[in-house]
Amino acid sequence: MTRVAFLGLGAIGAPMARQLARRFDLAVWNRTASRAVAFASTHHGASQARTPADAAAGRDFVVTCLPTSNEVEQILEGPTGLLAGLQRGALVIDCTSGDPDSSRRIAQRLVEAGVGFIDAPVSGGVSGAEQGILTVMCGGSAANVEKARPVLEAFGRKIVHCGDVGAGDAIKAVNNAMLAVHIWAAAEGLASLKKSGVDPKIALDVINSSSGRSNTSENLFPERVLTRAFPRTFKLALLDKDLRIAADFARAQKVSSPLLQLTSELFRAARLALGEEADHVEAAKLVEQWAGTEIR
Amino acid sequence: MTRVAFLGLGAIGAPMARQLARRFDLAVWNRTASRAVAFASTHHGASQARTPADAAAGRDFVVTCLPTSNEVEQILEGPTGLLAGLQRGALVIDCTSGDPDSSRRIAQRLVEAGVGFIDAPVSGGVSGAEQGILTVMCGGSAANVEKARPVLEAFGRKIVHCGDVGAGDAIKAVNNAMLAVHIWAAAEGLASLKKSGVDPKIALDVINSSSGRSNTSENLFPERVLTRAFPRTFKLALLDKDLRIAADFARAQKVSSPLLQLTSELFRAARLALGEEADHVEAAKLVEQWAGTEIR
Amino acid sequence: MTRVAFLGLGAIGAPMARQLARRFDLAVWNRTASRAVAFASTHHGASQARTPADAAAGRDFVVTCLPTSNEVEQILEGPTGLLAGLQRGALVIDCTSGDPDSSRRIAQRLVEAGVGFIDAPVSGGVSGAEQGILTVMCGGSAANVEKARPVLEAFGRKIVHCGDVGAGDAIKAVNNAMLAVHIWAAAEGLASLKKSGVDPKIALDVINSSSGRSNTSENLFPERVLTRAFPRTFKLALLDKDLRIAADFARAQKVSSPLLQLTSELFRAARLALGEEADHVEAAKLVEQWAGTEIR
Amino acid sequence: MTRVAFLGLGAIGAPMARQLARRFDLAVWNRTASRAVAFASTHHGASQARTPADAAAGRDFVVTCLPTSNEVEQILEGPTGLLAGLQRGALVIDCTSGDPDSSRRIAQRLVEAGVGFIDAPVSGGVSGAEQGILTVMCGGSAANVEKARPVLEAFGRKIVHCGDVGAGDAIKAVNNAMLAVHIWAAAEGLASLKKSGVDPKIALDVINSSSGRSNTSENLFPERVLTRAFPRTFKLALLDKDLRIAADFARAQKVSSPLLQLTSELFRAARLALGEEADHVEAAKLVEQWAGTEIR
Repeated sequence: MTRVAFLGLGAIGAPMARQLARRFDLAVWNRTASRAVAFASTHHGASQARTPADAAAGRDFVVTCLPTSNEVEQILEGPTGLLAGLQRGALVIDCTSGDPDSSRRIAQRLVEAGVGFIDAPVSGGVSGAEQGILTVMCGGSAANVEKARPVLEAFGRKIVHCGDVGAGDAIKAVNNAMLAVHIWAAAEGLASLKKSGVDPKIALDVINSSSGRSNTSENLFPERVLTRAFPRTFKLALLDKDLRIAADFARAQKVSSPLLQLTSELFRAARLALGEEADHVEAAKLVEQWAGTEIR
Repeated sequence: MTRVAFLGLGAIGAPMARQLARRFDLAVWNRTASRAVAFASTHHGASQARTPADAAAGRDFVVTCLPTSNEVEQILEGPTGLLAGLQRGALVIDCTSGDPDSSRRIAQRLVEAGVGFIDAPVSGGVSGAEQGILTVMCGGSAANVEKARPVLEAFGRKIVHCGDVGAGDAIKAVNNAMLAVHIWAAAEGLASLKKSGVDPKIALDVINSSSGRSNTSENLFPERVLTRAFPRTFKLALLDKDLRIAADFARAQKVSSPLLQLTSELFRAARLALGEEADHVEAAKLVEQWAGTEIR
Repeated sequence: MTRVAFLGLGAIGAPMARQLARRFDLAVWNRTASRAVAFASTHHGASQARTPADAAAGRDFVVTCLPTSNEVEQILEGPTGLLAGLQRGALVIDCTSGDPDSSRRIAQRLVEAGVGFIDAPVSGGVSGAEQGILTVMCGGSAANVEKARPVLEAFGRKIVHCGDVGAGDAIKAVNNAMLAVHIWAAAEGLASLKKSGVDPKIALDVINSSSGRSNTSENLFPERVLTRAFPRTFKLALLDKDLRIAADFARAQKVSSPLLQLTSELFRAARLALGEEADHVEAAKLVEQWAGTEIR
Repeated sequence: MTRVAFLGLGAIGAPMARQLARRFDLAVWNRTASRAVAFASTHHGASQARTPADAAAGRDFVVTCLPTSNEVEQILEGPTGLLAGLQRGALVIDCTSGDPDSSRRIAQRLVEAGVGFIDAPVSGGVSGAEQGILTVMCGGSAANVEKARPVLEAFGRKIVHCGDVGAGDAIKAVNNAMLAVHIWAAAEGLASLKKSGVDPKIALDVINSSSGRSNTSENLFPERVLTRAFPRTFKLALLDKDLRIAADFARAQKVSSPLLQLTSELFRAARLALGEEADHVEAAKLVEQWAGTEIR
């Protein structure tokens, strides 16, 4: 039976691990150990590993799903690090929304130890993970992506080979940057309409049958902003991080990118104003504050 | 039989007039008279009017569809202007993508002459007009919008009462501003991916099943940018105009709106660089120039 | 003896009026009448007028110094308005930091009554007004500017004929827009240095002997930000207003102006965050909030 | 006699080396060797070194003045690199306009070889170098800055200890970012005034006696833009590089910095449009293009 390790039982990671536990022999590790203990005790065939090294020992695949690439790099080295446990020929599948430069550095370090690497960030949110229908954006060699496919299919429905190592991260970052731009721009436009006396519900109804529509206008604003529900499904702090990866990536590619750069600064201001626990859609609240109105 | 006039046989106006000619006694006027002559000679029941005053004389409804509110204001006054022909109780339906302030000024001027007014800009493009399935955004009294409905249904499928006079213009401007922001942001992101070696087709495939998707990423970029087709369906110059209406509208509402304002400046630069005949999606070409790449 | 009226005894207006009272027969008017009463009682040769019409009656020159062009337009008409009192051949000198379009409209209205107009905004602040050494930026005909010169010399040292009506306003607005840009940019740069451990005092010392220096870095930051004194000499709300005049002016001239437009939005956000009474230099405090540091 | 090496005989470097040759035993090295040969043959007491290692051999001080930190890092290693020649106890004085991160990396590398390091970028331009009156911004230990002082005094008048290694680079980058912001903003404002019919010469005269003045408005625009002289004294490509260092530095410090980030993107666009040889003040030409006018 294929032996898999999963590191990082966060909001997205936990349901992904649950999908894996149904099909594979699974070792789980989490920085806060209690979560891994609880997971192992409630999922048949899953065992808790005390260190990243323990998790990796004897595994064919090691899946990581951490807040940023920094956390991935931090668990690589040292006597309890991944490299201390990984066997030659294993493949690390990094589902973190990472940054391309870090992923290339990590891949290089693993190659020296005879271990493969693909970056494989996902989209589809918590509900996509729970249903096992995530989109997975893979960067790495075609051979490694094919090798990883049976594992990825446990939680992903659409699995795309995007290019070399880092390409998955880059597309994920650009996708999330689009999301961020769309949220902020929609908030500016709808706040203006609201202040002029137009009902935002009517405005969204029209926009959503016109050229300005987006996932943001079709789903996020009607369900989360107009209702004032603002459910906490994806942290503003994480979107800010992804947006900055995209902004730095555009710079590194020497692409003049005023909208991405400016939006990155605005989300930084929003993160500072709204705190680390705020949901990404709450960025609209800062626009509302600056407008002196509420989009409802 | 209801008597209707139509002024402005442009790219969108001509197919709208065609729909009207099938149902109503129609007088048409166009600044360049030859187009009106040709229209009248090829559409049974349509007649050419030599001046706006002639077009309006004895008509129940006068539909205007001109480049900007300025042109509407210019044909109001004087011996050959609309006001010289309009009968009391008539209704002017302005399908121009106008600006709210001008529409309010025009409505006020018409009220003094006992004539009603609604702003009723449309979306759906040339093909929507040809099929009679436009979305119509109406600003004005509920009574006037109801009165106009039989006329609007000739070319519109979704007819929305948005609010008071100017509300239709405002929503149209905001919708188009979203469109403009989405085009520019997508171009920045895709140009960066392309320069890093990622295939933009793959990137769009992923984004379009993720949270960053929009009408722009789903339709405009795959069909027009990646193919390098850039069909000329809606002028960049007109989108620049709409974007500026939205930007000025946000300012007038005292909404701090950095993204809308910046995008407006970028489209101005694009219009200067690409000329008055360029299509709106060609704005991506200026991003490409600044990036030193092509999104293909 | 030349007869002069002065309307608007604000922070800058009062010391300007004081200079005029030394040389001319002066009538003063202020919306809050008590200030005019107090002024007249403490300045020999000055008398209080109860209405703008009273102030203008029999005067050769009427000097206005109000918050915005709106206030100037509001005191023009009606039985107690300026036009009800102004005699043919009089000259209105508007020292308001106005906007060019309004000034042209006012000038047009006055011309119909046989009255001349120049826009003549000033710079130099309260202390410049107290010492009578303001810079005066005049827009209007050369003849009117020459005619006004003896009056302007009472409070101005540098009197510049900038062009036609509105040119003084335009230059004033652009000057203040530069000021606003310099404040915000310096705050961003110095907050970054501070967070990295560099002493802002040393940074300013170096910048002020280098190419990046400005009035802002040489005077405002050392005296007001590093000391945390933030004296209230010129309201943020007024600078925001001037900046918006400049931004709208650039738009009206069809100049792609991303920096001016963005800065205008940032100052709007600052005004909302810091309130109507904040000093213009306090804009730096919003940058500090967004940076999580203090420039000291 | 103190023995000094100088590497990098560019526009600023050559006159700096000339000052050093008057006081010290000087070895010079330049990538294009002919310049070093010419320098040595025309300056008594100066000798040409064939490699960085040769230049460093037996020297107490090694001064580097290269385009970017990358070039400094490239000449460190290898059999002909600086480290191959440097003696323990020597001090490297890096006058490159570098970036703080690279400088810290270089310092670390040198420390391992028993060699000291300070970053010491200069301002004052070619003429300042020729007169020996540059401002020198030093980052490093107080002891190293004191040790370097006799060397720095050969070309610098104002020598400032800014903080730890990298602090000199950081202040230099921020200074140059201010310069870039001032140039772009002034161009936007003056282009708008020009299009409205105001003489930019008059506008600058007023601004320069008002609150919006800066080194840019007082010197660069009157001497270089209004005259259309645009002398090539400091490359736009280098200012773009410095601006990007400042923008990345602000990001690294987590300072929301919309103006710096946007200006960095605009200068990138200008560099692409105007080429690698353009002078930094020519950025105003792109604003002019976008405005359809010339500031003259």
